[in-house]
This record gives sequence, structure tokens and C-alpha cells, in this order.
Amino acid sequence: MLNNIYIDDLIKRAIEEDINYIDVSSDYLIPEDQRNDAYFVAKDDGVLCGLSIAMRVFEIMDDGFSYDAKKSDGDIVHKGDIIVEFSGNTRAMLKAERTSLNIIQHMSGIASITRKAMDLCEGTNATVADTRKTLPGLRSIQKYAVVCGGGKNHRYNLSDAAMLKDNHIDASGGIMQAVEALRSKVGHMTKIEVETRNMEEVAEAVKAGADVIMLDNMSNEEMKEAVSYIAGRAITEASGNVTLSNIAEVAKTGVDIISLGMITHSVKAFDISMKMKK
Amino acid sequence: MLNNIYIDDLIKRAIEEDINYIDVSSDYLIPEDQRNDAYFVAKDDGVLCGLSIAMRVFEIMDDGFSYDAKKSDGDIVHKGDIIVEFSGNTRAMLKAERTSLNIIQHMSGIASITRKAMDLCEGTNATVADTRKTLPGLRSIQKYAVVCGGGKNHRYNLSDAAMLKDNHIDASGGIMQAVEALRSKVGHMTKIEVETRNMEEVAEAVKAGADVIMLDNMSNEEMKEAVSYIAGRAITEASGNVTLSNIAEVAKTGVDIISLGMITHSVKAFDISMKMKK
Amino acid sequence: MLNNIYIDDLIKRAIEEDINYIDVSSDYLIPEDQRNDAYFVAKDDGVLCGLSIAMRVFEIMDDGFSYDAKKSDGDIVHKGDIIVEFSGNTRAMLKAERTSLNIIQHMSGIASITRKAMDLCEGTNATVADTRKTLPGLRSIQKYAVVCGGGKNHRYNLSDAAMLKDNHIDASGGIMQAVEALRSKVGHMTKIEVETRNMEEVAEAVKAGADVIMLDNMSNEEMKEAVSYIAGRAITEASGNVTLSNIAEVAKTGVDIISLGMITHSVKAFDISMKMKK
Amino acid sequence: MLNNIYIDDLIKRAIEEDINYIDVSSDYLIPEDQRNDAYFVAKDDGVLCGLSIAMRVFEIMDDGFSYDAKKSDGDIVHKGDIIVEFSGNTRAMLKAERTSLNIIQHMSGIASITRKAMDLCEGTNATVADTRKTLPGLRSIQKYAVVCGGGKNHRYNLSDAAMLKDNHIDASGGIMQAVEALRSKVGHMTKIEVETRNMEEVAEAVKAGADVIMLDNMSNEEMKEAVSYIAGRAITEASGNVTLSNIAEVAKTGVDIISLGMITHSVKAFDISMKMKK
Amino acid sequence: MLNNIYIDDLIKRAIEEDINYIDVSSDYLIPEDQRNDAYFVAKDDGVLCGLSIAMRVFEIMDDGFSYDAKKSDGDIVHKGDIIVEFSGNTRAMLKAERTSLNIIQHMSGIASITRKAMDLCEGTNATVADTRKTLPGLRSIQKYAVVCGGGKNHRYNLSDAAMLKDNHIDASGGIMQAVEALRSKVGHMTKIEVETRNMEEVAEAVKAGADVIMLDNMSNEEMKEAVSYIAGRAITEASGNVTLSNIAEVAKTGVDIISLGMITHSVKAFDISMKMKK
Amino acid sequence: MLNNIYIDDLIKRAIEEDINYIDVSSDYLIPEDQRNDAYFVAKDDGVLCGLSIAMRVFEIMDDGFSYDAKKSDGDIVHKGDIIVEFSGNTRAMLKAERTSLNIIQHMSGIASITRKAMDLCEGTNATVADTRKTLPGLRSIQKYAVVCGGGKNHRYNLSDAAMLKDNHIDASGGIMQAVEALRSKVGHMTKIEVETRNMEEVAEAVKAGADVIMLDNMSNEEMKEAVSYIAGRAITEASGNVTLSNIAEVAKTGVDIISLGMITHSVKAFDISMKMKK
Repeated sequence: MLNNIYIDDLIKRAIEEDINYIDVSSDYLIPEDQRNDAYFVAKDDGVLCGLSIAMRVFEIMDDGFSYDAKKSDGDIVHKGDIIVEFSGNTRAMLKAERTSLNIIQHMSGIASITRKAMDLCEGTNATVADTRKTLPGLRSIQKYAVVCGGGKNHRYNLSDAAMLKDNHIDASGGIMQAVEALRSKVGHMTKIEVETRNMEEVAEAVKAGADVIMLDNMSNEEMKEAVSYIAGRAITEASGNVTLSNIAEVAKTGVDIISLGMITHSVKAFDISMKMKK
Repeated sequence: MLNNIYIDDLIKRAIEEDINYIDVSSDYLIPEDQRNDAYFVAKDDGVLCGLSIAMRVFEIMDDGFSYDAKKSDGDIVHKGDIIVEFSGNTRAMLKAERTSLNIIQHMSGIASITRKAMDLCEGTNATVADTRKTLPGLRSIQKYAVVCGGGKNHRYNLSDAAMLKDNHIDASGGIMQAVEALRSKVGHMTKIEVETRNMEEVAEAVKAGADVIMLDNMSNEEMKEAVSYIAGRAITEASGNVTLSNIAEVAKTGVDIISLGMITHSVKAFDISMKMKK
Repeated sequence: MLNNIYIDDLIKRAIEEDINYIDVSSDYLIPEDQRNDAYFVAKDDGVLCGLSIAMRVFEIMDDGFSYDAKKSDGDIVHKGDIIVEFSGNTRAMLKAERTSLNIIQHMSGIASITRKAMDLCEGTNATVADTRKTLPGLRSIQKYAVVCGGGKNHRYNLSDAAMLKDNHIDASGGIMQAVEALRSKVGHMTKIEVETRNMEEVAEAVKAGADVIMLDNMSNEEMKEAVSYIAGRAITEASGNVTLSNIAEVAKTGVDIISLGMITHSVKAFDISMKMKK
Repeated sequence: MLNNIYIDDLIKRAIEEDINYIDVSSDYLIPEDQRNDAYFVAKDDGVLCGLSIAMRVFEIMDDGFSYDAKKSDGDIVHKGDIIVEFSGNTRAMLKAERTSLNIIQHMSGIASITRKAMDLCEGTNATVADTRKTLPGLRSIQKYAVVCGGGKNHRYNLSDAAMLKDNHIDASGGIMQAVEALRSKVGHMTKIEVETRNMEEVAEAVKAGADVIMLDNMSNEEMKEAVSYIAGRAITEASGNVTLSNIAEVAKTGVDIISLGMITHSVKAFDISMKMKK
Repeated sequence: MLNNIYIDDLIKRAIEEDINYIDVSSDYLIPEDQRNDAYFVAKDDGVLCGLSIAMRVFEIMDDGFSYDAKKSDGDIVHKGDIIVEFSGNTRAMLKAERTSLNIIQHMSGIASITRKAMDLCEGTNATVADTRKTLPGLRSIQKYAVVCGGGKNHRYNLSDAAMLKDNHIDASGGIMQAVEALRSKVGHMTKIEVETRNMEEVAEAVKAGADVIMLDNMSNEEMKEAVSYIAGRAITEASGNVTLSNIAEVAKTGVDIISLGMITHSVKAFDISMKMKK
Repeated sequence: MLNNIYIDDLIKRAIEEDINYIDVSSDYLIPEDQRNDAYFVAKDDGVLCGLSIAMRVFEIMDDGFSYDAKKSDGDIVHKGDIIVEFSGNTRAMLKAERTSLNIIQHMSGIASITRKAMDLCEGTNATVADTRKTLPGLRSIQKYAVVCGGGKNHRYNLSDAAMLKDNHIDASGGIMQAVEALRSKVGHMTKIEVETRNMEEVAEAVKAGADVIMLDNMSNEEMKEAVSYIAGRAITEASGNVTLSNIAEVAKTGVDIISLGMITHSVKAFDISMKMKK
């Protein structure tokens, strides 16, 4: 889904960080024409993500590189699973290894934690969504990884959907006025979400015709009440202080969406190793 | 230490991800000339890092922005501490907020975990060092954050120092031959590290005159023996499977350096909020 | 609304096209320190747009440049109106003039034609919207100019809202299936529009719960019927073969949105001149 | 003639504007491996331009794309003519379609209007030339389109040829002095054009040895007189207020060159559609 | 004459080559707020060039930098002359020093050798011109340096003037045909130069109406004959194997232009040092 | 050793300097599909460097380009030697020729002078090393060329190794204090060099445990004394005023490294020509 056009600059930046001009170990010691077979193996259980991007790193460094994928993005992998087998120039392989692993481990880490969060919501109406709490320059691959983990993407950025916070509401004189003012200006393809902190604001947001109502840092009790009050007149989104420990309870409140910053801002790398056959 | 020249592209990429062209909420609802005072507050205990970069995001979006730093990079901050107070255009502030926080939270997360790791080594000779396991495009700010947390930087990349792994050693016919071959080629400012997995390899690395000897995935017992054998003839580096739970024990083996991938590849964001005064 | 960060690269590209290294006329003949006062004057009646971007061209070429705007983006200007007065280095002024005018004339051309189209819809429910038929590299300034002319922005791009065409519908087995399949995948902030060509498809789109229904190349009669059938259950958008000659009639069909490719793909420059005072 | 190196950045910018990261319609609904055959068809009569650039958009998005051109740049095409047939991945095709068409329609629009202007000059000595009134970032493709339409390129930019306007002449103390001063400084491959507004200035420009004399906003009578006076001692260029309505008369004055800003600053897109075979 | 827009990317590239992220000597040892006064001093006799670009390097690294120029581009400087005095942050100064000197030394080297070549032509009609034999990425600053040394710029590149070599002439069927074919295609602001190797070709080039005739690798005798034959009907350019040892003799042949590749492809750096006052 | 990822941007910049949009000579006169065979021939004796980069220029301009290398980087070539034979599109070949030659001539110039310097050191312990005195944007290809000529690379930049000069030492209170302070901060893979100007400083540097001691502008006598005193406790580097005339004498002082700025800042192009077979 992510075309190379989006990936190549990111890879190039990463390689330029990792090699000023030559790799003093490999360029000086490994024969120029030596080739090798190698593979990636999972060192943990989780969801794979970023395989073609990881392979693209090798392709960019080595015209003669080829690979045979054993798993696909979104697949559940187990410790010891072979993910992909590949063949190429040894020097290039050693120069690309770290950058490639850094990317696939980060993306698989996101997919894996998203999958865990989704599993904890099973049996409820709730879906996990990401946020704008992404790392600089990595939003596209992070958002893609969330999808691979079974989650959904919230708005991509400040341009494609509106979210009204305190400042917007205060500047407009209230929720009603803010939504109305905005409707008269934004395009017809733009949804409007309103942040609410109590039932009064929820009621006002419903009345204003908000497409989505965020229940911000509410208790589970409050959220249940809000969901019941809203009764399908708007999409409901739980936000704030949700973790893997409490997400199951939050999901049971009946909210449609649970947004989680930690799946992109506090990612634990998913362990994958490269093994060379000789 | 990090000049704007290095930071501005990263910030620009982050802002371009976050705003296609306008912020449909703020540009349509907040009066163009409205100004506001605001501050960043710590929501946890840890080490601050990335303050001037975070402020640079606002400066780039707002010519009339000014700030008054209450803390500096490397400072220990406590929950509730005011980190910085600032003043600027409200629209620009809302457009820059998320990007700014994403950066400072990630960098402070790195500094904080590094500090914890260093504290656990107290009373020993060991220093925590980072690795090349960084996120694509973020190496410079991640390495800088490690320094702010009291750690040290390992080689920046494949060009500035040599590390001999299996493939290099096999291609050369042994550790002695590899180090010798490399010495005849690399510049006189380049250090050579050799990965070893047992005492035999350690002995060979010492004999070869390696500047640094990595003790790769050895038990603490083995590392103690290796350190004692090396006896200052090379710098020693423990690597592999070190966590906050076992780092104190590793440090007691007498190694000089403990390299930790997790301080850059599995960072937990350090919680900081922006509060607007009106 | 458009921060310099978005504008500067566009300006830089334009200047680099216009000057390889020096301006052989001005750099060789105009004294280095000569300064001049100048102004922009409208040579036609229309809507101004792009003033601060046009001024930014001069600022980028001349640190000592200053200006005094007499009009603002979105203002109606008449032939002979002074738009802005400015003062700066003569050489820089001559080097920036063409690039600056090329931008403001194009943007004002868009704002002016959009305004005309909007005026022709007066008294109806219809609003003019732009399309993705923009010129390469100019989408942000073109979309902004549409807003200045009183129009609205359709989706910015393929990522921020869905529009289902034949291929999407055929691949899914029908409108119902396509909308349902998509709802299960896209984020909760994403609207879905369905293209329809007849009443049967309109009915299916309504049933599928499409947020927006495009009435594609329908006659005004068909559109009236569709609008009446839809009855507010979805936003309606007229698209195809609308011109300034027939837009008033289209608007009277009761559609909510009339999208016009020509306001961005076939723009007539709005004539503005720079006059130097000496 | 335009190498990919010049085109690829422009295409990449256009695609990045049109897709933040994924196409939520096609990436979610069209099977990943679906392929399709398609073609471009002319919806009007005119001159084709930009075919290989339009095809390059698809190539960049799809490694397996191939095409069979039925027409070439510069060819006259008629409504209903098939321009090119191609085959590729359906998702990629839908993602590239709009960007590709935006480019070829704009370039063909320029070639078509240029051709019309040239046809109106038939039987005279006059050739149509473009100006620096191009859109930001599009100069190379716009200048190329003028050539495809049978026109000629004026100077590419301020660096490659000199044009002396009021300010240059005033700063030098007169036309003679300006030309002389410039000759002593510019390289021997650089032509010098002088703007003139009356016969007195024309005479001075001839005397100064200008390579090209611009007859700026003169009446046809004045231009005839000027051409007759100059008598081949310099190339003559008519400039200012020329349109398709009056160009034939201007051409009959005997001028060598008629420069037209509108062929690049006020382009009407030439209508071309993509049709998919299934 | 060279705007910062052209210079800043070149400087940024140079600094990024010279500093990965921090300067491990200065950032770790020099107090962050330490300031210093310093100056550039000439270590040889020659022509200064590139002063404002050299100062721009410091400005980019240090907002608080200021300087007082004692010499200007194009000035003759002598060993021991103070070129510029400046004041700024010590760390930034040490980080910018090498990049700044690398640029000014290279540019002054070009200006100095050009000046020498021009001086050797004194008393003749000949002017020294540069060529396209420039170093990758440095053409603009190299061409500017030639002008500072008193030389002239040949065509900037392949787009702004035509030079017909064997291949062009053979493909067209002869010099006459080549010039004629080209005249019918290139714009009216484009000069045409023809390479000739003997009197027969010179005669044909004159007859074809070439603007400039290159006398390629001819003996001085042949050039005299050619100049005499051409007799002002075209500009004459001597090219090939000209050095400082034989340029005076070449100049005496009466040619208008002597083009010298070595002034840009084989530059000897002009020695300039930075001295810090404390 | 230098991957295309590093080379392509440099080549692209060079081509963009050399062609604004078309080559008015070749694009207008050479038939679009004409192909040609050609070769590079050495016009002098020296060391070849940059062949694959030079060929990459043609590849970038011509998908159908192929070549057969007769020599490799680092090979000694003699006047008249064929370096490489190739085949491709004639237009593309003419458009790429100058850029390709500019690069290979510069790189071979560096390799050749480095080789000469190394040869003059034969029979001694000394190796020639480069410096940071490189041309802006060319460091990677210049450093690579030094290696091809048999020299060694000094530190790549300010980040990868420390060199303590006056300012660093003064700010720290002496050589001992500076080295000690730095050791406590820099990573364990970073070497520290100290500049010394007399025996007293040499002694202090040895005592401080400097990895490398620079003997800055010392006489050969002083250097001999220093080398003898240091006696292998640090690597020794001669720096300052070394030329091909005196390098043999410097080498005989026993120093390990002789660093030469001129091999990168004052390069004489090595003459190579392209010959087309028809």
C-alpha cells in the first residue's frame, strides 16, 4: 500500500545516517564480489509489519538482491519463524542490515501492540485507533503498522479532519457556535469531532451535530452514560489514560473508538534477527 | 550542541506530515492575530531533553514567538515542574504543539531511561553506551539524548569506527588477520573493536591489539574472567540481553562499557503537557 | 493560513528556475546598494489572493525589504487599485518581480473565477468546491485561493476521504458492498462519497449510507429528482460539464456542492503590475 | 528531450500532494494484484504534449507498467483519438491517474494554444515565443510544450540573456551607455535585448548594437515603422497586449518575434480522459 | 550578486559533511557561551573572492555572529592583509572555520589565476573566459569567481547557448546545414558557436553566419590567419592547450576570447588563515 | 565502495547545473534514436579513480547505456590507454559527457597526486593522509580518491574523532586537563589527537595519553626528536607546509602520518578524453 516513493527518502535518510561514505569494516575486509544467503528470523511472538520496506533497504544498496518472503505484513509470527530468505552481495547486506532491522522491528512492534490491544477489546464494539502522537518523519509507516495490527487510523493530520478543543470552542463562544462556524467553512468531506469532558458538553456536542464526540479522560461510568445518551447520533471515542491493563473495561463501556497514543509514541521494538548462511 | 541546521529539516518533515496546508480547526476558528501565553509541564519524574528543539518548532511556525526556559537539557525534572513558559500566536501554537511535544517527549524518554541505567551502574567502572539501533532519521537527536541522560555515544555509524563481526573475521581468516588487514587500510584516527564470544577469541583479540573488545552475550562469570584476562590492554564492552533488571550485575563484572539497544529502539515517551493560559 | 514552511520551497524552486546564478542585466548594471520604492497595482477587477506569498518572494531575496499592504487576501480589487507598497534593494526587486507576479496573478485568477462562480449561485443552497484537478506542485496555493474566492475545498487528496468510482464498486460487487467493506477499514474520521449516474445508483448509495453522493454528469432534471429523493440523507454534489454559463441552473437543482475543475486547471491570470517609483 | 531527472521530482511532488500515505479508496477496495488495461482518449481537437511524462507517473507508481503510444508529442489529435494504450496494476493506475492527466492536460493545453497562435501568423515572418510568465516550478515543462506547439523559447531565465528595461537604462544614463556597459561585462555567448517604446529609443537601440529590439506596447503602425527602420540590423520582438484576436495583424507588421505571456500564464487544460477496459 | 538562496544549500551540504551531529572537540570542551574575536588574513598575494559566502557559513551556525569586511570580492590582497574581522560564539566559530576557509580559498584561487591570465593578455584584444569544466555542484560559485578575477563567463550550460561539434555537424550534413537547422529551432536569444579546426571550416562557419567561431587546437599562425579572414564577421574564440606560459602569444593572434578550462578544473587554493584573538 | 545512494545526488546536481531543461545543440540536431560507441582514453600518466561514478552519469541519462571497463579504480594508467568502452544513445552521451569527465578527471587527479606523494615516502614508515580541506559537497568522493591513490583517510569530520587545538587546550587549562576532560565525555570508540608545536607540548601530550600527536609546522629536526621521544607511545602526524618537494625528507623523520591538504584542496585535473566512434 505504501509506494516506494514514500519509503525511499526515509530509507535514504537512514542509510546516510549510518554510513558517511564507506563502511570501514566491510568495505575493507569483505571481498567486493562475495555473495551470501541470509534470512530474517523472529525472536518473539507478534505481528509482522514492514517486510517490503525492510527488503527495499537491501534493494537500494544492491541491484542483484532478491528475496523470498515466507510471511506477509499482518501475519502473526512466532519465535523461531523464518520471515524471509534472501540472497545478495555480502558487503551490501552488512551495510543494509542494521537499517533494515531498525525499520521492521519498529513497525512490527507497533503492529504487535496494536494487535494485543484489539484482542483485549474482543467481544465489544470498540476499535483501537492511533493518534497524532507519532515520531517525527515516521507517521506514514507508523499509521500503516497500526492498520497491519488490526487497528484503525484516526485523522492523518490537522488538515483532513477537524477536532475542536477548548481553545477553538472558547474562541467561538461555545460548542454550538464552534461547530456551526466550522461547518460554514470546511469542505463537505471533512468530519468534525468535539472534545467533551462531561455530560453537559456531550449534550451540546450532540445538539451541534458533531460527527464524532471524544469522551476525554472520563471514568468508565461516565463513558457508559455518555454512550447511552448519544445513542448512535455520533461516533464515540474514548481518549486518555487507556493502557493494556484497562482497555478491556473501557471497551465494555460501549464506545466505538479507543484512541491510544502509546502504540506509536512508546513502541517496544519487536525482536527480529538476520542470520547469514555462511 | 545540535545546530539548527540539523534540526530544521527534521522539524519541517514532521510539520509537513502534520499539516497538508492548513489546520482546518485552528485556521478557521481562531482569530488570526490572537496571542496566548502557555507553558510545558512535566507529568512524570525524569530527565529533560530536547527543549531547544521543541521550542524551535514554535519559532519556525511563528516569527513572534518567545520563550523563557525554566529547565535545561539534562536537568532532572519532577511531576508538576514547569519546564518552559512561552508566548506567541495562538494559531501557530496549536499547529506546532503536537510536533513539539512528540519530539521533546521522545528525547526526554531516552534521557530518562539512560539516566536510570547509569544510576544502576553507580559504584562501578561501567558506563552505558548507545548502539546503532536507532529509528530512521532520528539518530542525531537520539544520540544527543543519550548524552543528556549521562550515557556515552558508541560509534555514530559504520564509517567512523570498525567493528569486526563473524563475517569480517571469516573473510580474513581469523581475528589476527582481520585486525592486521584492517590496520593497514583504515585511517589512524579509527578504532577497531572485535566481537568475541569466548575466552579463546578474547585472547586472540588482545593479541591482535584490538582497541575495544566486545563480550557478546557472555554470562557475567565469563565477562569477569575476560575483564581480568584483558587487564586494561583493551577497553571492554558488554553487549546483549542487558536490561534494567540485570544491568547492575553486569556492571559489577568490571566491564568499561555496557551497550544498550533498548535506550533508543524501545523508548517510552516521557509525559509532558502544554497548558495554555487562556 | 499557509505558513512560510509550505511556501518557501515553492518560491525557491521558482527563483532557481528564473536565475541560474546571477541576473546578467540587473547584477551588471544596477548599483549594488540602490534602493527603490514600488507598488503593485491591479489592472483588472477581481479578488486578490497570494499577497503575503508574493511579498515573501521579495523578503527571501532581500533582507532589507519591507511592505505596507493596502489590500488583503479575499478583498475585491478594482482596476487601478494599489494593492501593496514596498521598499527595498533595486537589484533584488528586479530579480524577484517576475516570480512574485507569476504567483499572485495565478492565485488571484483562481480567487476571482471562484468568486464569479459563487456569485452565480447566489440565492441557492449550492457552494462551489474545487477538485483534485490541480497543477503539479501547486495544490496548496490553489486550494487556498479557492477559499479566498469564497469556495470550499473538496478532499485534499486520496488519503483523507474516500470516493468510490466504478472500479471500486465493481471490485466489491456493488455499491452496498463497497461502502460496507470500506467502512470496516477506514478510520472513523473519513467520509465516503459515492459516484452515481442514475436514480438506481442514487437509491443504492442512500441505502448504503454514503456520506456524500456525487451526481455525475446528470441533467439538471435528473439532479432535481435525485436531490428530492435523497432528501438530506446525504450531501449532494453535482459534477461534470459545469461552466460559468450553466452553473446558475445547476445551482437551482438544489444540490449542496458544485465541483469545478476549471477553477484550478484552466486559470486565467489576474493582471497585476509592479511599478517602481524611480 | 526532457530527461527523467528533470521530471521525476516534479512528479514526486505532485504524487505526494495527492497521496499522504495510502489511497483510502483503492488501497482498501481493489485487490492488490488486480491488473487492468486502459487508454487515454482526446476529448477535444488540439496538439498533444507531455505523453512520456504522463506515462512516467504510472511507471513511478508501478514497476510492471507498460504502454504503447499511438501519438507523439507535437502531433495534432482529434476528439476521440486514442493517444496511448497501457497496462498495469489497477491500484497503481487509479493512484496515478489524476496526477498524470493533470500534467498532460496542462502541457497539451499550452501546445494547442501555441499552435493556434502560430497558425494565425502563417504567411508572415513572425514566430510566437514564450515569456518568463510561467507558473512556479513548471517552467521546464511549459517551455517544452511551447516548442511542441511550434513556438520558440525566449530566454530561459535572467541568467542566460540580457533584457534592458527602464531601470537598467536609467541607471546607466541611456540606452547607448547601458548596452556598452553590459557588453564589457557579459560573456560573448549572451545576447542583449533592449525594450523600446518609441522610434527615438528604437534608433538609439540600433545605434547601440542591440541584438534584439523589443517593441513594447506599440501600435501596429508604429511597429511597421520600427521594423522598416531597423531593416534587419536587429531582431524585432512585438510584446504587450497581443491576443489570438489581434495576433494576425501584429504578425503582418513584419516583426520577427511575437512574445505571448498567456500561452503559459493563462492556460486552458486540454481535455483528455483515461478509460479502463474493465 | 549570488543570493543566499543559491549559497545556503551548498553551505549546508558542506557543514553536514563536516559535522555528523556534534563537534566532539569543541562541543565538549569549549564553554557554550564563550565568545571570541577573530579575523581572516591572507597568506599569499592574489585576488579575493567569496567573502560574503565565507561569512554566511558563520552566520548559519551562529545567530549572534557579526563581521566587518576590510576587503571586497575582486580586491587584490597581499600576504599579511587582514581580510575581515569578526566576532561570535567560539564553538560555532570553530565548527564553521574549516568549511568557510575551504570555500573562500577555492574561490580566491580561481579569481587569482584568472587575474593572472588576464594580466598576461594586457595590450591585446583578448579576454579570458571560463568553460563547462567545473566541479560538480560548484558551477555558480566558480563562474562568479572568474568574474571577480576579471574574466568572462562562457555559456552557463548546454541550455543557454549552442556549440556545434563534430557530432552535430555530421548529423546535419555540414556546418551550413547544422547552423541553418538550428536557427530554425532555437529561440532568438540564443547564440550559436561553431567549432572549427582549419580554414576551410572557418570559412564555412562564417558563411553559415555563426555568431562565434571556435578555433580549436589551432597553432598561433593558423589562428592569426583565421582572425584575419573572419575580420569581425563573428566573435573568435581560441580553445585548447592554452596555459599561463603561452597565453600571451595566443592573445597576440587577435582572438577575442581565450577559454581556459584550468581556471576551474585545476584550481590551486589561495591561502587564507583564521586567527582567533584569544 | 561508494553506493549509488551517495553518488546520485551529486550527479543530479551536476547535471542540473549543466542543463536547465534541454541541450539546445544536441536535442535539436541529433536524431532522437541515434546510438553511438565511444570510449574514454587517458591523455596522461597517473592513477585512475571514479570510473563507476563517471559511468553512472551516463546510466542516469540513458536507460539503454552499457559499458565495458578496461581499467579499475586504483589502476595506474598511461597516456593513450583505453579506460572504458561504452555504447548508448548519442544525445544522452553528449549531454552526459562533460559532467562525467569533470568527475573522473578530478578524482583521478586526486588519486594520482596521492600516489606520487606515497611513492616519495617509499622506504619509510610514513603514510600520506588527507585532511578536512576538501571542496564543499565533494568530501566523500575526494576521500575515496585518496584511498585509491594509496593514501589513508584522516578523520572524516568533526564528529568522529577529536583534535585538540589551542582553543580547546586553553579553555581546559592545559593539554593534560583537556585530554582528561574529553575522555570523560567522548565515546569509547573516539580517538583523541593533540596538536603540539614544541617538545614541551609533545611531552605533555604523551603524558596525557593522547592517541595521536600532531607535530604542527615543526622542522624536520624537531620532528625527529619528537618521534624519538614519543617512541611509539602515540601515533605521530606531521602537518603543515609539506609539498612534493620536501615530503621525502619529512617521511625520513620517522613520523607515521603525513597529512596533506593540497591533495584535496589544490587538485590538478587528470586529463581524460571521450572519443566517439562515429
